[in-house]
Amino acid sequence: MSQTPLFPTVGMIGGGQLSRMTAQATVGLGVNFVVLAQSQTDSAAQVATHVVLGGHSRMEDLRELAQVSDVITFDHEHVPEELLRALQHEGFNLQPTPEALVFAQDKIHMRKKLEDLGIAQPKFAQIQSVEEALTFAESHDFPIVLKLSRGGYDGRGVWVCHSPAEVEIVMYQTFSHSFQWLVEEFVAFTRELASQVARSPQGQMVTYPIVESRQVNGMCSMVIAPAPDLSDTLSIEAQNTAMRIADALNVTGMLAVELFETSSGILVNELAMRPHNSGHWSIDGATTSQFENHVRAVLDLPLGDPSATAPFSVMVNIIGGKYPDMYAAYKHCLARDPGLKVHLYGKEVRPGRKVGHVTVCSNELQDAIRRATHAADYFMGVIEE
Amino acid sequence: MSQTPLFPTVGMIGGGQLSRMTAQATVGLGVNFVVLAQSQTDSAAQVATHVVLGGHSRMEDLRELAQVSDVITFDHEHVPEELLRALQHEGFNLQPTPEALVFAQDKIHMRKKLEDLGIAQPKFAQIQSVEEALTFAESHDFPIVLKLSRGGYDGRGVWVCHSPAEVEIVMYQTFSHSFQWLVEEFVAFTRELASQVARSPQGQMVTYPIVESRQVNGMCSMVIAPAPDLSDTLSIEAQNTAMRIADALNVTGMLAVELFETSSGILVNELAMRPHNSGHWSIDGATTSQFENHVRAVLDLPLGDPSATAPFSVMVNIIGGKYPDMYAAYKHCLARDPGLKVHLYGKEVRPGRKVGHVTVCSNELQDAIRRATHAADYFMGVIEE
Repeated sequence: MSQTPLFPTVGMIGGGQLSRMTAQATVGLGVNFVVLAQSQTDSAAQVATHVVLGGHSRMEDLRELAQVSDVITFDHEHVPEELLRALQHEGFNLQPTPEALVFAQDKIHMRKKLEDLGIAQPKFAQIQSVEEALTFAESHDFPIVLKLSRGGYDGRGVWVCHSPAEVEIVMYQTFSHSFQWLVEEFVAFTRELASQVARSPQGQMVTYPIVESRQVNGMCSMVIAPAPDLSDTLSIEAQNTAMRIADALNVTGMLAVELFETSSGILVNELAMRPHNSGHWSIDGATTSQFENHVRAVLDLPLGDPSATAPFSVMVNIIGGKYPDMYAAYKHCLARDPGLKVHLYGKEVRPGRKVGHVTVCSNELQDAIRRATHAADYFMGVIEE
Repeated sequence: MSQTPLFPTVGMIGGGQLSRMTAQATVGLGVNFVVLAQSQTDSAAQVATHVVLGGHSRMEDLRELAQVSDVITFDHEHVPEELLRALQHEGFNLQPTPEALVFAQDKIHMRKKLEDLGIAQPKFAQIQSVEEALTFAESHDFPIVLKLSRGGYDGRGVWVCHSPAEVEIVMYQTFSHSFQWLVEEFVAFTRELASQVARSPQGQMVTYPIVESRQVNGMCSMVIAPAPDLSDTLSIEAQNTAMRIADALNVTGMLAVELFETSSGILVNELAMRPHNSGHWSIDGATTSQFENHVRAVLDLPLGDPSATAPFSVMVNIIGGKYPDMYAAYKHCLARDPGLKVHLYGKEVRPGRKVGHVTVCSNELQDAIRRATHAADYFMGVIEE
């Protein structure tokens, strides 16, 4: 486990692409990195020298990671809360702490906390039955949004229902006594924004430019940094909202606040306490990437400048399509656009799976959108010219 | 060895920092990387998942690397030529080829080739004795520069001699029948420049902005990109010189041409066929870093845009000083300058050893010089405020 003498070790739970890009950021920092992954073929395990093989729901695997790490952090929210508390009780350093992370793990906890803080968000109710959902719909009109309080991501665990029949289908098909349900009003947003903050245990914060996030089927598809034509007032409000939440919830590391922009202001949609898809542009388009700042934050190191280095950065996800061989598309895309930045995650292509992303930095927004979209479409087999 | 399905594997001989930063560049590219390193604690072996332990002068170790690689490339010039030819004879893909690499390995070969090409360079002679060196000095005046044709780097193997007595001391103390000597005129240069080109086997080339390189004791200390106040004429001449050399020598991968700028034009000092210290700024200051373009070039992939993304980038090497603990300095430097980019190589601090570098990108040259110099000085223990 030796690396730069006297430098600390970050242990990350989860071997996905967020962990892979975090590993990459540690190389320059001279910080040691170890990942808890399920397999040596996991995205992050392919590029991390130090891998603990195991599952995020097994205490002995978590402990094995913790014993070789100065700080434990996360590439997802799926570690059971009781195991996190047990690790904490054994004296291990978790960043974010279980007390903070629960607000990213549990949407009911999150909604109630934001309500206490007076932060604008969709109207919501905790429900336990179809009847309670329908009662909510009576006062807020259809469509309504049903959510599982825990376990969802990339649009999973979220259903937009337009009728009582749809509510019944979703809740009966998904029903389990262990599930907690949340219902929310459907927000007629004009667009989705994201506000990212890095916060260290001693309380230093830096805020990234507010970005626009475009979703397809509940999964992030494109991110534009900064969000075009956003007023200074809303931009500052979005940054302040993220800072208030980070402070009030004692978040450490990166916090992403997904926001709805509406004609009457911004509402908080979701929280994530880790590097987030809405910040991938920062690898190529900011002085300090979200991955570097996550590492610096969880180690309680001074944070880096989050400023954009280009007028516009556009990131588009590469979602697995029908072609398993990305290498041919790759050569085409690199040849067609020498300024394209390609980031692949080492994952086997499967339909609907995030397998990489591309970023284009440009002085012209439309130029960046056009080039990034073309490359991602080509990778996905949507176009073939 | 599985990574992104169907993507190729780059094998790099040598586990130093150039290899480490190349490994980092492969993560986003989705390309597999394997390094031949002497120890698991080598700079690159700390961050590369796939390490072949062995020496660069042992045929069986080289072959072991070659067997798991689609292409073999280099972090230094020290692999014996006969072993490279043997690998080539066995059908392995070496980039650059031994025929090209010899001009970076052997200064006499290089000088004669550049002479054939009519490229401006210092006057030189191949010598075998003190007498021949003194004959050269009679027609070109002292000081003269004595060089070993092979094996030098970072100022080693090069001696500036001001008198016949100095020539005698150098040559007698260093004498060996296996050494080939070169003598060159001492060039009264105004400054040193470097011109970098990436070239792929199919002949695509991209040229990086010409940089100014400042040396201390024969070792690169600071690089300024682009070289301040360089005329367009000289800048184009320097780029053309590198492209001519790359083409004529059939270089593949990165080529660095170190240049003397004099009152009457530019002269070629040295060649390197690999990522080079004069291009470290490109990680933070160019659309495509020299490490990414080296990987793309040796794989014969289309090359990336080498343009600078900031008006000025200044890189300063961190040379080991008297303090073995860099972590305290690190925290200070990160706190003092959130825009500072720190790159550490995971090496134990020893006096005179390159252990990392810092880069500052800025709109103002003096601002970048001041900040990068301060940080590097602080790491080195030169200043303590």
